[in-house]
Amino acid sequence: MAPLRESSGDPVLPDPPQGPLHVARARASFPWKELALFWEGEDTLRFKKAIFSALENDPLFAHPRGSRLSVEKYQELNFLRCKRVFEYDFLPVGDMLDSLPRVLALIECLGMYDWSLAVKFFLHVLTFGSAIYSSGSERHLKYLPKIFSLEIFGCFALTEVSHGSNTKGIRTTAHYDPSTQEFIIHSPDFEAAKFWVGNMGKTATHAVVFAQLYTPGGQCHGLHPFLVQIRDPKTLLPMPGVMVGDIGKKLGQNGLDNGFAMFHKVRIPRQDLLNRSGDVTPEGAYVTHVKDVGQRFSESLGSLSSGRVAIVGTSVVNLKLAVSIALRFSATRRQFGPTDKEEVPVLQYPMQQWRLLPYLAAAYALDHFFKSLFLDLGELQQGLLGKDRSVRQAELGREIHALSSAGKPLASWTAQRGIQECREACGGHGYLAMNRLGDLRDDNDPNCTYEGDNNVLLQQTSRYLLGLLARRGPGGARIESPLKTVDFLDGYADILGRRFEGSSPEDLLDSSGADASNGEKGACSPLPGVPAPTCPPLPASQVLDHLNPRPRGRASAASLVEVPRVTCDPGALQDRTLGTFPGLSEACLQVPLAAYEWLVCYLLRESHQKLSREKRSGKSDFEAINDCQVYHCRPLALAFLELTVVRRFHEHTHQPRVPPPLRAVLRRLSALYALWSLSQHTALLYRGGYFSGEHAGKVLESAILALCAQLKDDAVALVDVIAPPDFILDSPIGRADGELYKNLWTAVLQENKVLERASWWAEFAVNKPVIGSLKPKL
Amino acid sequence: MAPLRESSGDPVLPDPPQGPLHVARARASFPWKELALFWEGEDTLRFKKAIFSALENDPLFAHPRGSRLSVEKYQELNFLRCKRVFEYDFLPVGDMLDSLPRVLALIECLGMYDWSLAVKFFLHVLTFGSAIYSSGSERHLKYLPKIFSLEIFGCFALTEVSHGSNTKGIRTTAHYDPSTQEFIIHSPDFEAAKFWVGNMGKTATHAVVFAQLYTPGGQCHGLHPFLVQIRDPKTLLPMPGVMVGDIGKKLGQNGLDNGFAMFHKVRIPRQDLLNRSGDVTPEGAYVTHVKDVGQRFSESLGSLSSGRVAIVGTSVVNLKLAVSIALRFSATRRQFGPTDKEEVPVLQYPMQQWRLLPYLAAAYALDHFFKSLFLDLGELQQGLLGKDRSVRQAELGREIHALSSAGKPLASWTAQRGIQECREACGGHGYLAMNRLGDLRDDNDPNCTYEGDNNVLLQQTSRYLLGLLARRGPGGARIESPLKTVDFLDGYADILGRRFEGSSPEDLLDSSGADASNGEKGACSPLPGVPAPTCPPLPASQVLDHLNPRPRGRASAASLVEVPRVTCDPGALQDRTLGTFPGLSEACLQVPLAAYEWLVCYLLRESHQKLSREKRSGKSDFEAINDCQVYHCRPLALAFLELTVVRRFHEHTHQPRVPPPLRAVLRRLSALYALWSLSQHTALLYRGGYFSGEHAGKVLESAILALCAQLKDDAVALVDVIAPPDFILDSPIGRADGELYKNLWTAVLQENKVLERASWWAEFAVNKPVIGSLKPKL
Repeated sequence: MAPLRESSGDPVLPDPPQGPLHVARARASFPWKELALFWEGEDTLRFKKAIFSALENDPLFAHPRGSRLSVEKYQELNFLRCKRVFEYDFLPVGDMLDSLPRVLALIECLGMYDWSLAVKFFLHVLTFGSAIYSSGSERHLKYLPKIFSLEIFGCFALTEVSHGSNTKGIRTTAHYDPSTQEFIIHSPDFEAAKFWVGNMGKTATHAVVFAQLYTPGGQCHGLHPFLVQIRDPKTLLPMPGVMVGDIGKKLGQNGLDNGFAMFHKVRIPRQDLLNRSGDVTPEGAYVTHVKDVGQRFSESLGSLSSGRVAIVGTSVVNLKLAVSIALRFSATRRQFGPTDKEEVPVLQYPMQQWRLLPYLAAAYALDHFFKSLFLDLGELQQGLLGKDRSVRQAELGREIHALSSAGKPLASWTAQRGIQECREACGGHGYLAMNRLGDLRDDNDPNCTYEGDNNVLLQQTSRYLLGLLARRGPGGARIESPLKTVDFLDGYADILGRRFEGSSPEDLLDSSGADASNGEKGACSPLPGVPAPTCPPLPASQVLDHLNPRPRGRASAASLVEVPRVTCDPGALQDRTLGTFPGLSEACLQVPLAAYEWLVCYLLRESHQKLSREKRSGKSDFEAINDCQVYHCRPLALAFLELTVVRRFHEHTHQPRVPPPLRAVLRRLSALYALWSLSQHTALLYRGGYFSGEHAGKVLESAILALCAQLKDDAVALVDVIAPPDFILDSPIGRADGELYKNLWTAVLQENKVLERASWWAEFAVNKPVIGSLKPKL
Repeated sequence: MAPLRESSGDPVLPDPPQGPLHVARARASFPWKELALFWEGEDTLRFKKAIFSALENDPLFAHPRGSRLSVEKYQELNFLRCKRVFEYDFLPVGDMLDSLPRVLALIECLGMYDWSLAVKFFLHVLTFGSAIYSSGSERHLKYLPKIFSLEIFGCFALTEVSHGSNTKGIRTTAHYDPSTQEFIIHSPDFEAAKFWVGNMGKTATHAVVFAQLYTPGGQCHGLHPFLVQIRDPKTLLPMPGVMVGDIGKKLGQNGLDNGFAMFHKVRIPRQDLLNRSGDVTPEGAYVTHVKDVGQRFSESLGSLSSGRVAIVGTSVVNLKLAVSIALRFSATRRQFGPTDKEEVPVLQYPMQQWRLLPYLAAAYALDHFFKSLFLDLGELQQGLLGKDRSVRQAELGREIHALSSAGKPLASWTAQRGIQECREACGGHGYLAMNRLGDLRDDNDPNCTYEGDNNVLLQQTSRYLLGLLARRGPGGARIESPLKTVDFLDGYADILGRRFEGSSPEDLLDSSGADASNGEKGACSPLPGVPAPTCPPLPASQVLDHLNPRPRGRASAASLVEVPRVTCDPGALQDRTLGTFPGLSEACLQVPLAAYEWLVCYLLRESHQKLSREKRSGKSDFEAINDCQVYHCRPLALAFLELTVVRRFHEHTHQPRVPPPLRAVLRRLSALYALWSLSQHTALLYRGGYFSGEHAGKVLESAILALCAQLKDDAVALVDVIAPPDFILDSPIGRADGELYKNLWTAVLQENKVLERASWWAEFAVNKPVIGSLKPKL
């Protein structure tokens, strides 16, 4: 592998410590440091190492983590840590826009340490800051330096106690008073109180408050953002007319102070309307460059898209941490064995592999998807700031909205289920708080809810897809989009004619997708030199031979040729081109991609037909759409996003730039994620006729198990690539040396009062109850 | 309905308070009090009411609940509450065996209040107590009164830090020393420390310790239980040689003190071996009436079966609480609507119905299954105590082992997923700790792990089923079992020939299962007098018309006739008979039951063939069995248990004793649970050829949605039947009056220091950070 150039004495990627996991590492088929370098890039690796080291060497960041502190103590510590992050100034503001990979890395590093800290920091700097920057105008730029110097502390107040998903229903008002040139911010009742607002509970001095804007005469111009001071920065006491407080303990992220606020006729200067999409003149006239109320509404909520993309990343981080803990545990925990005398690591069991390895593959696949989507978003935002009003810019906005609206649900659910599976796969030790899987689950959970309930959000994506179909119509325009995620739909009719067919073994070479020049037989053939696993895997090559689909019907060559995207490996991060690699052809249209394309087309047709039927039956649009969600639009949106994730990961792992020693393992990860995700739709594949006969379903299952067996010896090395240092991972059963029981015992004995008699011991020893003495009271 | 006879002034079932939920209640199709009476029986209703009232009126049981206390404070409070339960003596020991429904009710009541309390109490009284009673002999009876007078406090110490599932691998030793007639209990190293033991952390004075028994000369006789004193009851200080402590914070149940213990050559009297399955003479000879080591091992672990059954009940309670909270919330929370002005309760959305109502049906179905299995267990234990050595008794033991080994996984997973769905379905408010869904999830989580990891346990059930098939062989004995859960397998070959066929509407009357005498057209036809729902449901009757299967091939009449079991409604609890109801015939073999029978037979055949193939290929039994789990034995065990739950609930809801006003709603619940569970196996139904064509899968989905739409107006009333009083449910968004926001605000404002400035406010206001001051340290 390429040597890592060192600028200091410390290696960027130190060798893992010696210990029981050494055996597992020695079985890996690839050099993990080379994968780390390929996956992250050297600059990012160095940057992350610097952040992790700073935290580890600073006593303020010493554990225990928050779930073992009182909420009050935890919030104090979290605020002190947040201040300290400003003192480190890991990524100066000026560098942020020029270094998106470093922004990603900073979010990941702080989040891996503790989401309460990361969310507190980014809500202030990014959410609050960028709301002012992107929703305001020149007159608001004065606030930005105050944000970065901590003169003020901010929050973003949209949700009300009775309105979350339905933001249009928000009832806080802002009446303009021309006599004083002020807005009067008012909460009509308790149900219209702002609620759930992060940083509002104890620390925020200012809030971006969304309210219905009224001009004199009583006309309502819809929801607009206002900058409202809620506390005095000198005392942290509330401003007159503001009732602000903490909503109380949550399931997780308790270092963050979520709050509520009610406004009693609070007056703010006219200039504190964030006036990008609409403004009020001193005399009280409403002016806007955006004609359509709906468009204005969308613009004012535009800052939410980036939130959804960020949540994809948040979820991926949680999944990475959970699989790291569970797989290191599984490689060292022994239970049962071929004889009563001998016990094998639980990772040797096909069941344990099947429970965990697909989530490891998902962590990689979704990590890549997140990074690529983050770059797409960067492109969109540059266009917005440059006031790009091109058709392409608008289309890009719609496409990214569709991707993030399904990406957040897919990533947050995958993480939530994955963490739960990891918790269970670690048995009782997974239920011990110190091992962190509970914190991960609790901290990840709100990702399913905030920035839009997952199920509600999915409607945005299905609506986008149905809209494309409708716009096309008979003989209509081509279906294409800036990021090309929907271009395949142009072959809709042909794709629906495809069928899965078990084919002959010799077809394998055609469909393997392996670059013949690197000398491998196929993506999933066993690697030479890797010892045979203890539990022999299924004959993978045979199984995978059967996974070759044949297009049927009038599939045009064009619809079968993929246009790979160069995605977010570090070299490509700054300079991306959309082009076609020479040498990639029909052969690359792998089995799961073909199946997913069929599935999305099938669900799109089913959804379209169902919606038309419901409307024809006389239902209102509202009813008709609601009646199409469960088994139509919801799976449509999810399948489309899975296809996109699968496609991007497939292309990323099959590009010529992948170093040869990494190709086999990355392609296995790609195949495993794709087939495992696809297997959740087997019923539809059969129902719609894409699959027929017992063979297809069995081949799919066998391939998944074969891939698990092939990947099990690479699992620990794959974890080494994505796991942070032990201090950050902070899980005794997940430490890199694999000294499972030593680490666990050390941690147990370091807790408070472990061996001490309870302070209330006399309640047992002396104050005996009189059995049944209270029975007469029943 | 039959009037509830009142013995005091207080009604046993008071009317719900007035409030916004009144509207939802008024739409119910049935009288909820009559269902409560049918479901629980009057004695149980009264008993539960007495317990709930006692807790509510006693300040010691005042909330807040544990997750908002420090662990130390919570454990103290939990112990005081446990003592108080002895003072109330709700169910005197002597009455326990004679009143199984009251035992059930006591577990449910304490668990609904707080599992930390229930588990602490029952671990001591039932687990510890019955281990001594059932594993010991006359010489140990002296300990029983001490348990019930709290002279000693007990725990059950099986698991070690490095051995959970594989109990045979346990390494604590008990060497007999004839010179002093003592056993020497010893932990060879830290990995053999007892770990996870409930009550051991701070309170237990005595432990039933499982250790390998060695007689002089060094022969090991396997695992045996010993009664070991670990603390001095007068001081709660450890006994010499015992290192005992608390394992630290867990994800939930933190009122319970889980502990560890290591023994350094601790000497106990010879008599404290619990000697039911084997004993040692004073001279050191080992004597036993059980010849086979395996059988002895099984006997000594026999007390675990009841633990698994109890966990089924625990899980059901958690699911009941969660759906109660989420459905009351959903009936009052409004979001979006047909116009911008009008918002509808979220329960009106088919998506919300589909997310929650199947879990409501599951709560009922699994509740019934639990009660029936608990009675089966009672029968088994009476046989054990009566030293019944009949073949039937042995078969009953095997059958209950198989049912509880899959019942625990099914119930705990259903609850875990259901609680998570409820959490998400309540949006942000579900993430607020005070609303309790987090506590429910955390407290339910270990049900997936303790008393056997779910995935590992399922192997017991599949092994049982494969064993039945093997014993039968070609021309072998009939397959039958005492509880008749496997009798249908006798028609194995015929059942495999069945196919699902969409049939003509006129067949509906034949297969509806409705008792013609009660005047209903079918179990799922719309009720007269129920107003049309806001979102019109699918045309249910049409859909359900198509759900009629036709047996194919040589199905004998016998295999198609069900033998209903009289199950656990109150009247039948004490006097159960297994018999055939007159008038029930082929017509009762409903669609999901037929499909499930086919599914179990299919998976049994697939598992059997796969296992044979693996063995023929030269694999050891260990390897072969492991390689058959993921896609064969695991789904086999789950499908078998689902069939059993579906069948028992179907029979319970279709028996003639069901009061006519309750029939429609109960049968809808039964159909919904059955079809929803079945729909998770659609891929297999297609793959194996039971389903073919698009129609079958679509009909299944439509039926589920139709049932959801039919049940949505009954949901609140169905919750009223299973929800405890508000004080016990302890969830502001789940209170019976439905004053969602008032209750929420009251609770928020009652928390500590809600509006107060943080004590560390000066850290923001005064101690400003110097931005970047620590940057040079990076």
